[in-house]
Amino acid sequence: MSYESLVIEERSTNKKKQKPETKEIPFGRKFTDHMFTMDYDEVKGWHDPKIVPYQPINLDPAAMIFHYGQTVFEGLKAYRTDDERVLLFRPDRNLARLNKSSERLSIPALDEDKVMDYLLELVRLERDWVPSFEGTSLYIRPFIISTEPNLAVAPSKSYTFMVILSPVGPYFSGGIHPVQINVEDQFTRAVKGGTGMAKTAGNYSSGYQAQAKASETGNADVLWLDGVEKKYIEEVGSMNIFFKIDGEVVTPALNGSILKGITRTSILEVLNDWNVPVTERKISIDELAEAYDAGKLEEAFGTGTAAVISPVGELNWKGKKMEINNREIGPLSQELYDTITGIQRGRREDTYGWTVEV
Amino acid sequence: MSYESLVIEERSTNKKKQKPETKEIPFGRKFTDHMFTMDYDEVKGWHDPKIVPYQPINLDPAAMIFHYGQTVFEGLKAYRTDDERVLLFRPDRNLARLNKSSERLSIPALDEDKVMDYLLELVRLERDWVPSFEGTSLYIRPFIISTEPNLAVAPSKSYTFMVILSPVGPYFSGGIHPVQINVEDQFTRAVKGGTGMAKTAGNYSSGYQAQAKASETGNADVLWLDGVEKKYIEEVGSMNIFFKIDGEVVTPALNGSILKGITRTSILEVLNDWNVPVTERKISIDELAEAYDAGKLEEAFGTGTAAVISPVGELNWKGKKMEINNREIGPLSQELYDTITGIQRGRREDTYGWTVEV
Repeated sequence: MSYESLVIEERSTNKKKQKPETKEIPFGRKFTDHMFTMDYDEVKGWHDPKIVPYQPINLDPAAMIFHYGQTVFEGLKAYRTDDERVLLFRPDRNLARLNKSSERLSIPALDEDKVMDYLLELVRLERDWVPSFEGTSLYIRPFIISTEPNLAVAPSKSYTFMVILSPVGPYFSGGIHPVQINVEDQFTRAVKGGTGMAKTAGNYSSGYQAQAKASETGNADVLWLDGVEKKYIEEVGSMNIFFKIDGEVVTPALNGSILKGITRTSILEVLNDWNVPVTERKISIDELAEAYDAGKLEEAFGTGTAAVISPVGELNWKGKKMEINNREIGPLSQELYDTITGIQRGRREDTYGWTVEV
Repeated sequence: MSYESLVIEERSTNKKKQKPETKEIPFGRKFTDHMFTMDYDEVKGWHDPKIVPYQPINLDPAAMIFHYGQTVFEGLKAYRTDDERVLLFRPDRNLARLNKSSERLSIPALDEDKVMDYLLELVRLERDWVPSFEGTSLYIRPFIISTEPNLAVAPSKSYTFMVILSPVGPYFSGGIHPVQINVEDQFTRAVKGGTGMAKTAGNYSSGYQAQAKASETGNADVLWLDGVEKKYIEEVGSMNIFFKIDGEVVTPALNGSILKGITRTSILEVLNDWNVPVTERKISIDELAEAYDAGKLEEAFGTGTAAVISPVGELNWKGKKMEINNREIGPLSQELYDTITGIQRGRREDTYGWTVEV
């Protein structure tokens, strides 16, 4: 792997974009002044790392990304603290997972240390874009696309790695609130031996039909069951899922089709630290329904970078409606949310060493 | 849906590319002088159909195609006959399937009749690019990409539909010959409720690891088993699969995870026409191995646009090696190949009405 030193080509000051002035920033539609790019070919490996003004990509119509979906991505956030520091949350985990995803998609690995330096440099250059309003952050989207113009069904010989940045508002504009979720029994997100554990494009658009079906009946998201038996709970939309049943926290065990969420991992660590009983295991939708009927389903929440903790207020499964904790956020969900976001915003001591200052 | 009339912007004659002069044309790397494009937005629907010089696409780095894989494609061929006519093979089926794929991916439908006209117009303009050497053709790649710059996980509000053309050589340069195939028992291509029946990008790159594993042991391709039980045969690489067992032809029934191949459909029709017994049903790898051991596995072949018929000479499954018909093309495979390619090249009477003259 040959990496050269980073070239920074700054946009001229009078061409800079206007930064958002309220916390009502729609997710993922506004981008900062600069982006990072680095190319790969078989001779030079990953090369030519650059920070350049945010600009369109020029690709041959036969570029493999348009035809065979060989691509991976990540998502993480930069947070502004009350004392004007900028913190990232476990960015090393994102880069490690990016490489795991790339392995599954036959994309050449990145040097995580080098890329961490480039990422920090980009966020440093754009640090004025990290918003300070409550609940806001700068969303960071690293992604790799296959660029070889070739219609043969085989791994690309060239790639571009990019990082773009987008200031984003709070996931729930009125603060954290429980959502209504539909248990999907027809469509499948992923199956063992597939790509479910990787952050790759095809896993996302394949869920749009289930998402539309859920929306039609007033649900905000989809709870996916396993692709084999349509029985075991996997994840919610683009989040992992946790349940508190009779005092114990359970989350589906990583089985090859579930994404290993960084918020998920962090919550497992926090719960262990608190001596709250927590288990990663198979959990069937029937078991969940029985626990609900027995009055033992105390809390349910999704976890992910976007919302951190997203409480589930209602689960709908084949006509059965399960209202959880009177559709209110539960005490454990709230405490986890306060703890993780507190660490992210520098308001709680980071005893875990999870934050990285830019 | 609002469609305007087609605008044709021709490349100046002195800038035209050189056409291949031998039949050794690598697949999918050389493209013709022009391409077709048409855009979609929520207000105008599909609009602005154009034939323009082949040129790069300009996209925002946040364009949804790069992140969530909302995209579909098709593949078909134009053949030159001995009397210099140019024929397409069942192009209506490709456009119908494109719309089926789009439905699964939440992409707005195209008007198939209009698009057929545009497609024919493009091939007409590029008809000098249809090669005449034995086994060559002009490969046609229609595809739709999602273009809205937005990182929200939801269907795009804008799309571009394109058609690019690529002269291609014979699939097997030395003529049709049997290949060695590995039965994949670890990775999964598709599962019920997923996107296996759609021609969408994510289905293809997800197979690269299995493909690499197969190549390492000298296999040319992968035979996929079902994602649920890893027991039932689904398809080969990017082809459908047929077996002749004890005088009867069988092919896996369409189950929601298998692509409905146009060559597959055509072969079923031809076999029925010939009164050869043929069944679409579930077929397990164990049943196949038993038939092999009993000396009843007479022929095996993949079917698809690329090779039309690709005989399987050897199947490898968990250390078991099955050599089929002494690694030679079987009489039925040969007759099917001659029949389909004969119709495609205008050498056999098209009693089915499958060809469309450009």
